Amino acid sequence: LLIFILTESALELVPKKIANHPSIRKHAARKKKKPGEILLDRTYHHAAMRRLAGAEKRGRPDIAHITLLQVLGTPLNMSGMLKTYLHTAADYVIEIDSRTNLPRNYERFVGLMEQLHVQHRVPSKGARLLSIKKATLSELLNEVQPSKTLAFSTMGRAKSLQETCEAISGEKNPAVIVGGFPHGHFSADTMALTDEIVSIHPQALDAWVVASRIIYEYERAIGL
Amino acid sequence: LLIFILTESALELVPKKIANHPSIRKHAARKKKKPGEILLDRTYHHAAMRRLAGAEKRGRPDIAHITLLQVLGTPLNMSGMLKTYLHTAADYVIEIDSRTNLPRNYERFVGLMEQLHVQHRVPSKGARLLSIKKATLSELLNEVQPSKTLAFSTMGRAKSLQETCEAISGEKNPAVIVGGFPHGHFSADTMALTDEIVSIHPQALDAWVVASRIIYEYERAIGL
Repeated sequence: LLIFILTESALELVPKKIANHPSIRKHAARKKKKPGEILLDRTYHHAAMRRLAGAEKRGRPDIAHITLLQVLGTPLNMSGMLKTYLHTAADYVIEIDSRTNLPRNYERFVGLMEQLHVQHRVPSKGARLLSIKKATLSELLNEVQPSKTLAFSTMGRAKSLQETCEAISGEKNPAVIVGGFPHGHFSADTMALTDEIVSIHPQALDAWVVASRIIYEYERAIGL
Repeated sequence: LLIFILTESALELVPKKIANHPSIRKHAARKKKKPGEILLDRTYHHAAMRRLAGAEKRGRPDIAHITLLQVLGTPLNMSGMLKTYLHTAADYVIEIDSRTNLPRNYERFVGLMEQLHVQHRVPSKGARLLSIKKATLSELLNEVQPSKTLAFSTMGRAKSLQETCEAISGEKNPAVIVGGFPHGHFSADTMALTDEIVSIHPQALDAWVVASRIIYEYERAIGL
């Protein structure tokens, strides 16, 4: 079993501090929701985000959307051998069942994530596909107890992905961690939680590019 | 140089036949555009699409969006060794410069594609990043003259992606063709244009999953 974690994901509800900004109130009204119940999104809230700390790493739910579609569509996931978590910059952890058929449409994905933040699980009855709880990455790792924890970053040691995945192919439940934010690097907290930080390319790559390659190479390493 | 073609992409302007349907007119009005100048999108035009022939393969521009983001973000493309084309179900060919920074936001991508269909190139002045012209897949292949043409489909011969990419790694400009539609198979016309049809997995995979794997494995095969 491979554990995939998209960490510090730029996916969060609009913070209270800027909930009264005109661009947010207007967008929320158009969606017929309260300002505090919509996702922060740079496409629509650029002006409001100027007042936010660490804004360059926030307000990009599209990164989680595209990366999750990529990850959930792999043969590894289809055969039930992938466990996927989304850890957000606001320290929530979203657990995603491998059978989840995520909306392909971005606005529908955003609506689903907003619903999840409000009602804590989706669907509200029956088999739970998505659930959310308040937790740090450290708490998530304590819970899932990976046999090894790797993170991917240009700040890591240069190593081929093939070598990296072959090294973890014999592990019981290794975790691979990719950053779900548009710019910058992992926080010091994240870095301290990993056994190894690997750099697979000298330039920064999109999260979905890194994620798809890791899973494909892991499939090869285990002979799937 | 690898040529990547997403073919029969479910990305087209609303056809005249259904341009007067209430769901289309309402959506166009909200976007302040004419019904014939917006992209057909099942998320918004589901009811109107009932009257369309071959509807199950149409109205999914999200497939092109996610696949292009995946493809343009690869090291192969960043090093200028990938040439990307989008062939649409309505027989337009969109040429995408490798330096194109495609919008990450879906609505902005849709707006860009709508603009492209109206003004034929983007930006309208200076270095051309995106251009569109009326052409079939056959006409595109006649123009780019690939040294070998492979298509990927569950209807093809089962073959590992590694073997497939190693076999084309010595070619001058091989073309790989992936379907940009949600259900069904390539048209007979498409099939007849290929040297080989390869099946890399017994079940249908999302276009973006197939595309990311082909490019990664091709990079490996050429030692990038």
